[in-house]
Amino acid sequence: MNRGRVSLVGAGPGDPELWTVRALRRVEEADLVLYDALIDVAALRRMTRGQCFCVGKRAGRASVKQETINRLMIHAARQGKRVVRLKGGDPFVFGRGGEEALALTMAGIPYEVVPGVTTAVAAPELAGIPVTHRGIASGFLVVAGQTGDALEATLGAVRPHSVTIVVMMGLAGRDEIATRLMAHGWSGDTRAAIVCGASTPDEWTWTGRLADLAAAVPPEGAPGVLVVGEVIQVRDALAAAHTRPLFADEVKYGRS
Amino acid sequence: MNRGRVSLVGAGPGDPELWTVRALRRVEEADLVLYDALIDVAALRRMTRGQCFCVGKRAGRASVKQETINRLMIHAARQGKRVVRLKGGDPFVFGRGGEEALALTMAGIPYEVVPGVTTAVAAPELAGIPVTHRGIASGFLVVAGQTGDALEATLGAVRPHSVTIVVMMGLAGRDEIATRLMAHGWSGDTRAAIVCGASTPDEWTWTGRLADLAAAVPPEGAPGVLVVGEVIQVRDALAAAHTRPLFADEVKYGRS
Repeated sequence: MNRGRVSLVGAGPGDPELWTVRALRRVEEADLVLYDALIDVAALRRMTRGQCFCVGKRAGRASVKQETINRLMIHAARQGKRVVRLKGGDPFVFGRGGEEALALTMAGIPYEVVPGVTTAVAAPELAGIPVTHRGIASGFLVVAGQTGDALEATLGAVRPHSVTIVVMMGLAGRDEIATRLMAHGWSGDTRAAIVCGASTPDEWTWTGRLADLAAAVPPEGAPGVLVVGEVIQVRDALAAAHTRPLFADEVKYGRS
Repeated sequence: MNRGRVSLVGAGPGDPELWTVRALRRVEEADLVLYDALIDVAALRRMTRGQCFCVGKRAGRASVKQETINRLMIHAARQGKRVVRLKGGDPFVFGRGGEEALALTMAGIPYEVVPGVTTAVAAPELAGIPVTHRGIASGFLVVAGQTGDALEATLGAVRPHSVTIVVMMGLAGRDEIATRLMAHGWSGDTRAAIVCGASTPDEWTWTGRLADLAAAVPPEGAPGVLVVGEVIQVRDALAAAHTRPLFADEVKYGRS
């Protein structure tokens, strides 16, 4: 019997302790792991004896084409391998997990999806910003950074100040995003934040006004999440109440 | 030295295998666990020797007041206890995690937030529905079920057919939600889905048209997530390609 199969697995925002228990098990049992650029490779290699290949962008090299990734998964599964496709965040939040699931289905390969902690929620969260908060925001919109007409269509679709906005992969376009939001009626005084490298040692957070977003200088090349909305006040309140640090990354109780 | 502290921990959609590794560790080391109604209590008690108290709604009894939960956490932490506040999904997605963080901050209690797999994304995902999909939806809006003016304001926040809508805790109000969305310009033919008990043995999924949402009959009292948008077509495509089941809950490879 061919035991070949594929698990589309979300690895969360970065810290391997934010993997799910099932993600850990699948990686431990894997014959082949195809991982994205933002995965902690050292941790991954400690967890599995399976072959590990990076299929994401890294150090100037282009990422492997989606079609090639699909072919690699299908080929390995047909050879009877237990394949893990390991993705940052959640596989179905801008992760092309749906496309991979369709490709596997068409090829008749058994597969499963293992949800992960989505960076859209966790990055602000680890910086002390709840995407929802009673009396401030009763919903949140998650979009991916785009430019031109696509961005215009997305940002114009939401009524100003109605919900928290989380933009993934939007750092490079932050100037255009801020300008278009203000043109759509968002006040330049709306609180804005940038969170890079959430849950990793390189975590970096900026908060300010929407009008000042373009002036923020995040670390070069860092992936990051952009947040717009008054929920950022909660971070201020948490930070203002004490002089000592209180956020998750600063109160790690001795990781094992 | 008082080692008392509080971890606000997300437990994901239900299946304990979808807990994060950090969640598992915090529960293992806990002296006191205050858990919500949707947590798998049998699994929880196997994982910890700490005291476990349900503070959520169950079997007709009202849930413990938020103020009381805050007092319990603060009191136990001051006694030197390692407290885990265990919540379904993610603590900062309609989980009142922000309010608890503020209460702990004001009381000077060290705390951390441990993000979880949010049910808003995972419930559709485990039913084969990606909240984003290239060419179909480039964003998603997450809101909580409300009624009247609050609901009106939230559902009016996005332009019809622009993004996927996920409504949490909205099953009871599904008739009103459908009616208001259609009044806002959403076509009655828009695909809609209800996913109850995602990742648990009681998983139940309905798909149909927005106009037929009121006619769906989910299991009595089941918590569920409502999805509106054409991404539901992806589930159809996954299901249509094969006669054998292919979704995550149906391809469990022998859980240990």
